[in-house]
Amino acid sequence: MKRLLMLLALSAGTCSLCWAQAGDDSRPAPSNLPGAEFPRIHSDLRITFRASAPGAQSVQVIPGGNDNGLGKGPYEMVRDEKGVWTVTTPPAIPGFHYYWLRVDGFASNDPSSRTFFGWSKECSGIEVPDKTQDFYDVKDVPHGELRVRWYYSRVTASWRRAIVYTPPNYDRGSDTRYPVLYLQHGMGESERGWTEQGRANFILDNLLADKKAQPMVIVMENGMNAAKPGTPPTATHRQNEAFEEVVVNDLIPMIDAAYRTIPDKEHRAIAGLSMGAGQAVQIGLSHTDRFSYIGSFSGIGIRNFDPKTSYGGVFSDPAAFNRNVRVLWFGAGTAEASWATSGKVLVEAMNKAGIEAVWFEVPGTSHEWQTWRVCLHNFAPRLFRK
Amino acid sequence: MKRLLMLLALSAGTCSLCWAQAGDDSRPAPSNLPGAEFPRIHSDLRITFRASAPGAQSVQVIPGGNDNGLGKGPYEMVRDEKGVWTVTTPPAIPGFHYYWLRVDGFASNDPSSRTFFGWSKECSGIEVPDKTQDFYDVKDVPHGELRVRWYYSRVTASWRRAIVYTPPNYDRGSDTRYPVLYLQHGMGESERGWTEQGRANFILDNLLADKKAQPMVIVMENGMNAAKPGTPPTATHRQNEAFEEVVVNDLIPMIDAAYRTIPDKEHRAIAGLSMGAGQAVQIGLSHTDRFSYIGSFSGIGIRNFDPKTSYGGVFSDPAAFNRNVRVLWFGAGTAEASWATSGKVLVEAMNKAGIEAVWFEVPGTSHEWQTWRVCLHNFAPRLFRK
Repeated sequence: MKRLLMLLALSAGTCSLCWAQAGDDSRPAPSNLPGAEFPRIHSDLRITFRASAPGAQSVQVIPGGNDNGLGKGPYEMVRDEKGVWTVTTPPAIPGFHYYWLRVDGFASNDPSSRTFFGWSKECSGIEVPDKTQDFYDVKDVPHGELRVRWYYSRVTASWRRAIVYTPPNYDRGSDTRYPVLYLQHGMGESERGWTEQGRANFILDNLLADKKAQPMVIVMENGMNAAKPGTPPTATHRQNEAFEEVVVNDLIPMIDAAYRTIPDKEHRAIAGLSMGAGQAVQIGLSHTDRFSYIGSFSGIGIRNFDPKTSYGGVFSDPAAFNRNVRVLWFGAGTAEASWATSGKVLVEAMNKAGIEAVWFEVPGTSHEWQTWRVCLHNFAPRLFRK
Repeated sequence: MKRLLMLLALSAGTCSLCWAQAGDDSRPAPSNLPGAEFPRIHSDLRITFRASAPGAQSVQVIPGGNDNGLGKGPYEMVRDEKGVWTVTTPPAIPGFHYYWLRVDGFASNDPSSRTFFGWSKECSGIEVPDKTQDFYDVKDVPHGELRVRWYYSRVTASWRRAIVYTPPNYDRGSDTRYPVLYLQHGMGESERGWTEQGRANFILDNLLADKKAQPMVIVMENGMNAAKPGTPPTATHRQNEAFEEVVVNDLIPMIDAAYRTIPDKEHRAIAGLSMGAGQAVQIGLSHTDRFSYIGSFSGIGIRNFDPKTSYGGVFSDPAAFNRNVRVLWFGAGTAEASWATSGKVLVEAMNKAGIEAVWFEVPGTSHEWQTWRVCLHNFAPRLFRK
């Protein structure tokens, strides 16, 4: 049996040409450039990658991360007589996965795919359709707008940009005011992440069409690019040192001036993923006078939680905290062990101390965007209800 | 003397390491990824490119096009003992230039640079600062917004997106209505081109701050991706077959419904660059009941212009045409010979026939974005004045 599985695995790796050329059931990935036939996704979610590189000695497909849903790479591509390299991976997990090619050792985008800002670079990505859920698809519902808003930050002494989701019909009702969710990307990503990889706008469009969430404005800024003047550009870990100040001193006042928001703490939320989860928790818990809703998607929970001292003592009076912060929400995918475990342990410790924190698990997904899409889809309906 | 120049040229090509490492006057290109030290632009506008590719046999820098301002490539990079490849080009023309690397023959993005949609792919680009003009810089002036607007096209039977520039304070005055400019990119580009490469939004922000243009909405859509259902995806030349129908039947009605426009022909303009110039002229002249202003930036002018028959006979009564179309504008860079010559010849023939077409030349620039930025900067102030 083991041998049969090995043979099957081998044939999946080497026989992709026959599949693709024999009119099989595979289709171009939705993340491909217009007209690009590869990568192709098979009905069982195996993926065939292909690249023309006649002069190369070695071409590999590299999944972005240890196991981001594409399985364990690298995948060695096989050259045909014309210099076209091909490989078929085992079935992928549905969702969005970063990847790149390695051509004679040089990390390169796949020229057939769109790029997405991740891994601190313009990175190839593949969208693997999910047959079981469609909450992030572009549907025939009213769509909000994404607005690119430039503003000057005194903290960083530079022009910065925020991407702002305004819900459908924002322009129609000139008196309606909206609550605001500040939503942060992860390490190596940018303000583009939550819409281009995460599809936050479509998730909200669909929730709103189903009347499952309150209409809200969503603000996405760059938490990797918020250094004060004079910070050495090579100090990567310091590139977000000033992000909390940017949010509190520059971004929130600008948003409340430029958009029809309800500018109080009862109508302001902050959430983020991974590094952005840390930022959301840090900024939210340090400013409970400004935020009443806090969401952590795949954040690393602190160890040895102590309600009296952790997070600056904000939990020292649990009853007061529960009145003050209306939703404190933690989620992670079950396939991202360290994040899931540490988050769950933290929430259990909080609950034991009488703090009404919520724990949520996404079945089967790893430290990747599918987890965070599902997190947003669960978190957003809880906002601005109370 | 000739030998001295050759030596200088050689030293520029091979001695870049000493320049870059000796604290010379070079700076990271503004189009680099955050924190990326290369490519670096020297004060005389030579550019040093660098990439780490220890396993490669050959690495080149390829300018995107015959002479797009980076000079004539390919430029062979030179390997050091650690596998880091470097080359310094001759001085570049200021402006935005597409380029890519070729690693053992494989076209790859430069991992240090942002990507821009051009050449039908996610393509590296370098912004070379212009010391003589700053009309497209991000300045301390009120900024308009860029809005991503999804809409359903009946023509293509698909969800499409437009990028819409709304001028500063659009949200403040709920009664003010605006004229609209439809603005098209070139072959192999997308709706992102005019803002990411062209900086159309900053050009308008700055013109408006100087009171040199009328406040207007600008609409940018994808003229490369407008095929009717059933069109084979490989039929590249047919991907824009239906664009005229999309604009007239779907896009204009959507924009006039979604934004506070002045929905008449006196307040509607269309312009584009290269392929988009052809689309703008074609759509504009075929629908003079909808457009009063038409701009062609580096379009190929038709030969043997005949006022009686060319463009469907729209010029057969020059006086009527001049009353009807308020600005018909053609421009090109002097360094893009075929475009400049054919456009100039066309405008001369039109003028001779009594048609008030305008001809404009951008000194020294080629078939590239610097030409089109200057064109927009000259064209936009002429709109919606009469």
